Amino acid sequence: MRKPPTLVSLAIDTALLNLSHISDLSFLPEHILLDLFLRTLRAGKLTEKILKLFVATGKDEVLSLISELNIQPVLTPEYKSNFCLRLSASLNVGKMAQVNIRDDEVDIVIGALHSDLTSFMEEWRAVFSRFHLIIVKDPDLKEDLKIPGGFNLDIYKRSDIEHVVGSSSTVVFSGYSCRYFGYLMSCKKYIVSIDDDCIPAKDDMGELIDAVAQHITNLTTPATPFFFNTLYDPFRKGADFVRGYPFSLRSGVHCALSCGLWLNLADYDAPTQALKPGQRNSRFVDAVLSVPVRVMLPVSGINIGFDRELVGPALLPAFRLAKEGKFRWETVEDIWSGMCVKVICDHLGFGVKSGLPYVWRKERGDAVESLKKEWEGIKMMEEVVPFFQSMRLSQAAVTAEDCVIEMAAAVKERLGPLDPTFARAAETMVEWVRLWKVVTAQMSIAA
Amino acid sequence: MRKPPTLVSLAIDTALLNLSHISDLSFLPEHILLDLFLRTLRAGKLTEKILKLFVATGKDEVLSLISELNIQPVLTPEYKSNFCLRLSASLNVGKMAQVNIRDDEVDIVIGALHSDLTSFMEEWRAVFSRFHLIIVKDPDLKEDLKIPGGFNLDIYKRSDIEHVVGSSSTVVFSGYSCRYFGYLMSCKKYIVSIDDDCIPAKDDMGELIDAVAQHITNLTTPATPFFFNTLYDPFRKGADFVRGYPFSLRSGVHCALSCGLWLNLADYDAPTQALKPGQRNSRFVDAVLSVPVRVMLPVSGINIGFDRELVGPALLPAFRLAKEGKFRWETVEDIWSGMCVKVICDHLGFGVKSGLPYVWRKERGDAVESLKKEWEGIKMMEEVVPFFQSMRLSQAAVTAEDCVIEMAAAVKERLGPLDPTFARAAETMVEWVRLWKVVTAQMSIAA
Repeated sequence: MRKPPTLVSLAIDTALLNLSHISDLSFLPEHILLDLFLRTLRAGKLTEKILKLFVATGKDEVLSLISELNIQPVLTPEYKSNFCLRLSASLNVGKMAQVNIRDDEVDIVIGALHSDLTSFMEEWRAVFSRFHLIIVKDPDLKEDLKIPGGFNLDIYKRSDIEHVVGSSSTVVFSGYSCRYFGYLMSCKKYIVSIDDDCIPAKDDMGELIDAVAQHITNLTTPATPFFFNTLYDPFRKGADFVRGYPFSLRSGVHCALSCGLWLNLADYDAPTQALKPGQRNSRFVDAVLSVPVRVMLPVSGINIGFDRELVGPALLPAFRLAKEGKFRWETVEDIWSGMCVKVICDHLGFGVKSGLPYVWRKERGDAVESLKKEWEGIKMMEEVVPFFQSMRLSQAAVTAEDCVIEMAAAVKERLGPLDPTFARAAETMVEWVRLWKVVTAQMSIAA
Repeated sequence: MRKPPTLVSLAIDTALLNLSHISDLSFLPEHILLDLFLRTLRAGKLTEKILKLFVATGKDEVLSLISELNIQPVLTPEYKSNFCLRLSASLNVGKMAQVNIRDDEVDIVIGALHSDLTSFMEEWRAVFSRFHLIIVKDPDLKEDLKIPGGFNLDIYKRSDIEHVVGSSSTVVFSGYSCRYFGYLMSCKKYIVSIDDDCIPAKDDMGELIDAVAQHITNLTTPATPFFFNTLYDPFRKGADFVRGYPFSLRSGVHCALSCGLWLNLADYDAPTQALKPGQRNSRFVDAVLSVPVRVMLPVSGINIGFDRELVGPALLPAFRLAKEGKFRWETVEDIWSGMCVKVICDHLGFGVKSGLPYVWRKERGDAVESLKKEWEGIKMMEEVVPFFQSMRLSQAAVTAEDCVIEMAAAVKERLGPLDPTFARAAETMVEWVRLWKVVTAQMSIAA
């Protein structure tokens, strides 16, 4: 049985209700003042005027609490409850004020490697239909696309690609790389991209997962890459920063890339797939976490979201295997591009998250066949990973474009001599940035 | 409907069954050879003799596969299926050969902060009764301990502590630090330690979680701290390394520390607890992951397992707040000790895992009361974290003892001038290593 409230507790409750009419708190004993302050915070009632009231008491414990929680007036006129906002980043009060973004700030980009997208689009209709879609047809695909009605979309084909980049460009948009043309043509802040052999997954309660909403949540709540939080994402409902987590690191940084996962068929390489053809991923891990600074990860292009304004130019189709095929395990362009983005995020002070959302990946392809041609990519990872792990950018690189150009020079110098694929990648990175700048400039004139 | 097997496939199945009677494979076409090799691997039938058979074919694709998978004869006589063992580390075939450890290689260490352990012990009986227990009574606790029968245990009290370390030692074993006396007295390879206000949690299927078994699994399968695996622990059933993960890093390293989590009451600091008194952790995240190299985390002493032989001397009660209390949020000794272990693991090439197992943490204490005295620890984290993040040990430090001594000197020099608590911590670290060496030497003589 709960104990009845004490008289002191009831008095504090009443004070809380009438706080805006009180002009002096200095007569209160310090422990009551502290209690009142905490309850004010919890109730989301801390305004500039009320903060001044507490500060005016001059009581040490209260002043120390205010300073430690890093509560400061934020001079942004559009936010009324500015203290709570500033505080939410440092003590995560209530729930992190998630930035509300509009549907028209998001493009869904789909690379069409299959001509019949009917079942793919129908499966995603509930999720996709609110957004603008960019569908890029693999230029190697002969048949016409089949796409059901009722979506707001633009379709780009080989002729559009050639119109923009020319057919002789070093940037190649065939196979899985066709989606990068969509990244180039988008003018939205956020992009979500999902492979056309994936359908919405269900969570462990059997509910359909809105992958787009989860990517946007990941991108619009802070990332915390400088110290590991053992309870995963501290900004999720019901979670927080664990004891020992420095307060100065709790406000986090902008998240620029959200890497989702896969149920059913996971994103394995050809040897793993060939050795374990029956293996299916059925474990739903209900977590999102910030990948720590200076830690590299294998970003899979199957299911991602990113902030195009922050890192768009770093998602690039630069690393093309000589024997690149039409199965995921025959490509590494996304792994390469992912490490570019991670290095750039680390350098520019942005974060990368991994975990939710899941998509359901359907099976296709014979990995044993791929094994006969795909050793190249696996071998190259042994050079690629140490390269990106040790890559440090100069202070002169202050935009994603700068960073890609600087990285391209390092690729050319350090990896170029090892294999022509690296030299080509360096060249493509430079060309991609040129293209990005041209297209962006054209769009801003057109807008 | 599944397609019926092809004749080629049936022929390969038959060849697999009779492989030990075949003396030459070179007449087989390369694609069949590759298929046969993969099936041999999957079936766990690759012996030294059979490997030679495949090597003798001289076929490029097979030789390349063998080299890429890093398949080598391991010259350890005790393992018969030595190839599969070596391979399991690089391609994770079947399931990672988990080292089978005996129950008598584990000590469960409990710090008794409450005198009546009856319900705690009864809740854990099914899990604990197989193991030897070390119970250390908080020297500040006046009442006699109440412990139910049927356990194999040793109890240590104030008099035992004084007998071993003297009452004037700089190493203090009161409050939550009493458990460290148990770490000192243990002679087992593995230690699991759980706070006496925690009971076994249930997983998301409602099954009771065996926290000890999970810690041992974490400690006896490799950690992979050099590259982030987006599917979490690659050695769990149903998981693996994701495409792009370098093969050279797949064998991983020894795991020295396993950090478990908490359902119900999470391990928050006093301000978080005070601001969100009703918050309970109900999210069961079904994952274990390696904390990447050079990444610091807030290790909570509530629920951990570690390899005493590898890092025992680094789990030390050195960082004692002037106003340390009897609630978890009034202590930071475990946070300090955790960062010592992490730095040492990074230096010596061991891994640290975080995630499963969960325990169910019961509530107690009034965080608002603690707030009135506990700002010290929170403020100090702002100095402690950058210190450990930038700490690099010299090549001369080759054991955990060496590392602690070297770190103590750095603490004294860099943090000592800031606060007497740091100077005391440095002194205690040196004294602890001395104590560890004396006790270990005495035990090895007694054994």
